[in-house]
Amino acid sequence: MFVSFEGIDGCGKSTQAARLADHLRAAGREVVLTREPGGSPGAEEIRRLLVEGAGERWSPETESLLFTAARRDHLERTIRPALQAGKVVVSDRFADSTRVYQGAARGDLRPLVDRLHQLMIGVEPDLTFVIEIDPATALARGNARGGTEDRFESFGLGFQQRLAQGFHALAREYPDRVRLIDGSGSADQVAARIRDAL
Amino acid sequence: MFVSFEGIDGCGKSTQAARLADHLRAAGREVVLTREPGGSPGAEEIRRLLVEGAGERWSPETESLLFTAARRDHLERTIRPALQAGKVVVSDRFADSTRVYQGAARGDLRPLVDRLHQLMIGVEPDLTFVIEIDPATALARGNARGGTEDRFESFGLGFQQRLAQGFHALAREYPDRVRLIDGSGSADQVAARIRDAL
Repeated sequence: MFVSFEGIDGCGKSTQAARLADHLRAAGREVVLTREPGGSPGAEEIRRLLVEGAGERWSPETESLLFTAARRDHLERTIRPALQAGKVVVSDRFADSTRVYQGAARGDLRPLVDRLHQLMIGVEPDLTFVIEIDPATALARGNARGGTEDRFESFGLGFQQRLAQGFHALAREYPDRVRLIDGSGSADQVAARIRDAL
Repeated sequence: MFVSFEGIDGCGKSTQAARLADHLRAAGREVVLTREPGGSPGAEEIRRLLVEGAGERWSPETESLLFTAARRDHLERTIRPALQAGKVVVSDRFADSTRVYQGAARGDLRPLVDRLHQLMIGVEPDLTFVIEIDPATALARGNARGGTEDRFESFGLGFQQRLAQGFHALAREYPDRVRLIDGSGSADQVAARIRDAL
């Protein structure tokens, strides 16, 4: 089983992905908890090119290629071997992020993003949780983190609002796979909603 | 005008690209001399991921995506602006290298490489010089250089021989654009052959 978590920066995805991994392990499953961009040594190197530095560092088109390169490496070296060994893969972001970030909110590149995905990746999670919270709250949380991984936060609140709309729309586009999760309240409350949806 | 130089590692491309740039400048043209992977600040960062480290660092598919990402950045930030300003662009490698390295010699990925090129790049040089020399001589020259950019040399002589065949075949595939240049003899002799062909 391959589960992904999606949502805007600062929505609580990473916390909830780790909580779900713990929950599944407690239930006796072998779980690989991973993330994008990254999740394999090569993809983690590509990650640094994507999440650090100035916003204008890459065009949306080049960004789509770099995310797809990182995803291909992650798929070949982490996700596919884990699934073949019968493990559960829980990933903090996967291809939906590129659909929303590069396909909608950073340009109007969705047809190009789709063709690139079909050509080089072709795999979807079995289940995707989109954690929804207010974009202003999420951005404040993301900015409060500090560190150098703030390239996408630097695009500002309007960008985070377009992202939130894009993630919300995924549930209509992929009704069998995508579940919207109310991300308000405590981490325990959100984790309980995710376990209920599972 | 957009001119590219192609050939196996150590064939003398870089020297000849610089010689042609000097020749065109002496004739009064404004010339941008550039290279791949690289040729723009972002693409030079991607270059390090590609030409350094162990051979198995990336699969041919991930490699194709990284080369295409670097090429897209190079095209957007260096090549296209120079051509629009009426300059001549002379590039040490362009898309033919991906056709031969990832499309033929590292796998049988030519259809995938072609679709990726069509989707994300779509531009060809006006003229391409393929410099042909004996693969064993070229590999010895490449290895003698030292430095850390030896990832493709590490694939060995059989790989360089497949590359040489792949570059040779480009002249039949693109007869209007690709010129084969005998790379034997001195740099002066090779430069004279290129000026004659031009």
